[in-house]
Amino acid sequence: MPQTLLIHHIRRILTPPPAHQPLSGKAQGSLHTHDDAWLLIEDGRIVGSGSMSEPLPRAERRFDAEGGMVLPAFVDAHTHLVFAASREGEFVDRIRGLSYQEIARRGGGILNSALRLRQTSEEALFAQAMQRLEGLIRLGTGAIEIKSGYGLDTESELKMLRVIRRMKEAAPVPVRATFLGAHALPPEYRDDREGYLALIEREMLPRIADEGLADYMDVFCEKVAFSADETDRLLEAADRYGLRPRIHTNQFHSMGGIEVAVRHGAISVDHLEVVNDEEIRTLAASDTMATLLPSAPFFLNDPYPPARRLIEAGIPVVLASDYNPGSSPSGNMWLVWSLACIKMRMLPEEGLVAATLNAAHSLGLADHLGSIAPGKKAHLIVTRPAPSLAYLPYSFGENHVRAVLIGNQWYF
Amino acid sequence: MPQTLLIHHIRRILTPPPAHQPLSGKAQGSLHTHDDAWLLIEDGRIVGSGSMSEPLPRAERRFDAEGGMVLPAFVDAHTHLVFAASREGEFVDRIRGLSYQEIARRGGGILNSALRLRQTSEEALFAQAMQRLEGLIRLGTGAIEIKSGYGLDTESELKMLRVIRRMKEAAPVPVRATFLGAHALPPEYRDDREGYLALIEREMLPRIADEGLADYMDVFCEKVAFSADETDRLLEAADRYGLRPRIHTNQFHSMGGIEVAVRHGAISVDHLEVVNDEEIRTLAASDTMATLLPSAPFFLNDPYPPARRLIEAGIPVVLASDYNPGSSPSGNMWLVWSLACIKMRMLPEEGLVAATLNAAHSLGLADHLGSIAPGKKAHLIVTRPAPSLAYLPYSFGENHVRAVLIGNQWYF
Repeated sequence: MPQTLLIHHIRRILTPPPAHQPLSGKAQGSLHTHDDAWLLIEDGRIVGSGSMSEPLPRAERRFDAEGGMVLPAFVDAHTHLVFAASREGEFVDRIRGLSYQEIARRGGGILNSALRLRQTSEEALFAQAMQRLEGLIRLGTGAIEIKSGYGLDTESELKMLRVIRRMKEAAPVPVRATFLGAHALPPEYRDDREGYLALIEREMLPRIADEGLADYMDVFCEKVAFSADETDRLLEAADRYGLRPRIHTNQFHSMGGIEVAVRHGAISVDHLEVVNDEEIRTLAASDTMATLLPSAPFFLNDPYPPARRLIEAGIPVVLASDYNPGSSPSGNMWLVWSLACIKMRMLPEEGLVAATLNAAHSLGLADHLGSIAPGKKAHLIVTRPAPSLAYLPYSFGENHVRAVLIGNQWYF
Repeated sequence: MPQTLLIHHIRRILTPPPAHQPLSGKAQGSLHTHDDAWLLIEDGRIVGSGSMSEPLPRAERRFDAEGGMVLPAFVDAHTHLVFAASREGEFVDRIRGLSYQEIARRGGGILNSALRLRQTSEEALFAQAMQRLEGLIRLGTGAIEIKSGYGLDTESELKMLRVIRRMKEAAPVPVRATFLGAHALPPEYRDDREGYLALIEREMLPRIADEGLADYMDVFCEKVAFSADETDRLLEAADRYGLRPRIHTNQFHSMGGIEVAVRHGAISVDHLEVVNDEEIRTLAASDTMATLLPSAPFFLNDPYPPARRLIEAGIPVVLASDYNPGSSPSGNMWLVWSLACIKMRMLPEEGLVAATLNAAHSLGLADHLGSIAPGKKAHLIVTRPAPSLAYLPYSFGENHVRAVLIGNQWYF
């Protein structure tokens, strides 16, 4: 006996249109809307919608949206949700005048997180990360990608990925795992880059592939991390294990990461605070998407990625939170959306597509998530009453969530 | 029979020290703390605190802080909370390339709000503003200043101030009213500046004083609004009615507003995105405080006020939200605090003092609010568990509020 749920008195259903590929260019800014509507859900999947002026279908459960809007839940396609400790001490160091890169050179930053993570049990990491995830679900996140990269030795990277695997089993939302062993050069290999690259290629990757622990491969291509040549070599190794890349690049410097990523058929290049015209042309000629993480430049006081130039070049843009304790201690996708509009001049519609359907495509989840359409999973946000779509990113400090639906389960 | 409330299992009580004047310089960054504590409240006033290792006092009601921190509620000393409609349409215009000043010149901006406000009943304005205020209380705001300035004719300015008077009576938190008839030149006086100035002096001010509708006088001293000479003249008139000034100045230009304000003994100069060394010296030699509103430059993509230079010059700094539909559609003081730390390099402690005790001083409320001390009103925030004070502004997208206490009443 299927369980049915009717959400009624919806002021407006807002969703990206059905699309078998990521939306780009003008299409990135187009939404389908249905005013004064109801939405019928059966066994956690969307059945259909109708107008309040029509007779309402029967349903075992009913939820009165009370004039709120209904949006697809956010898909957060770039996070570092598994970590052992917050790093507000380094935040205060930055206020006192140190730069993020200086803090990294002093053993803070990613290496600080690695030190703490290595000392923390799988159980404790799992409990903390699940608690964070539950907070994000209440804010409207309905699927999430999580990276390793605070382990930086074989056992600790495997520990992180096993935490993520446990989350896949335990979490009410889809979780995708990305192996980011090449996040930073660990202190043990400070004078032996070759040794660490070989460790990733010959020990970490085979074991991760063997245990099926990762869906994707990531490398931080940046001066403080790995060069384009090193990235190339690591993606080559990942190719052999069938791990498609999604990489960190162009956060502080333009140094060849985009070209390497495109050559390896990367799903996405992430960050792009610093990107030149040639790199934009390279991306536009490829199937690689651009994942922008505006919380990071907001928190680090860096320039924002040139979202308008990317959209106008026809590159599908994804928005994600980059939730991590060093450069983006926030997984609030509403604020990401606001930053996209305020700081990167994305239209509210473009922001919603980027944070839902395009993000779902980047994680291979678009058949089930990212828009409101018959057959898709009912991962939905019911907002408090709001006068328009644009009001949502505009009123940037407000909590717009009245309730979040994940299949059959409401979160308040 | 007095009603007693015990808040127990507080990880840390954090408060500005008792001070009969605003804190400035190094003192702006000093807090008193009490770890593993309880706090006793009687009839809505703080009686005292103690350590969890001591025997707990008896109380009729108990609240388990469960390891959260307790802070004084925020005092929001600069808002435009009474308005008739949000202005996200202009937000989209700005994304599409118009500047805030261009929008103002086209009849958008403040004049748009004035048009809508004039058409809205006192009852509707009151209901909307009370709803906004309740949302802010749940976010931790325990006292608020509200300005007129969207009326711009005598009856509409009086209507706004009567709404604020009704709020003073109905709201559970102290409300202060500021007359801002000189917010913009209304369209009817586009070619008659003198006529509008005279209207304020000869009609608005006498009637407002007669009805006791305002606690303070404000003028927007800026190129798109009123000159320093006009500000001088209007503050002169306000002096005659005993209304102390707190003025908008130096938001976009340095044009003499600070000097005029100080000459008239202003309590505060607000905004200061653009301020020169001489103006800082003028302020430092006065009793006038600096109220910084970082949500506005965040939303308008303007430079932030030079908080560090102001603090280092010994000027007491206040933080406020500037909540209004055009340049700061947010009254979230947590985000204001985060912006102060991230964008203006204020230390977390300096931010808390600015948003509590110093703000209370600027509204004449410091005898009762702004810190946690015996005899003061119990307007308090109980946070969710947090590892440190700095964590609160650091994790910028998170809702840290577990509960807000306003006297005897909990808000969740």
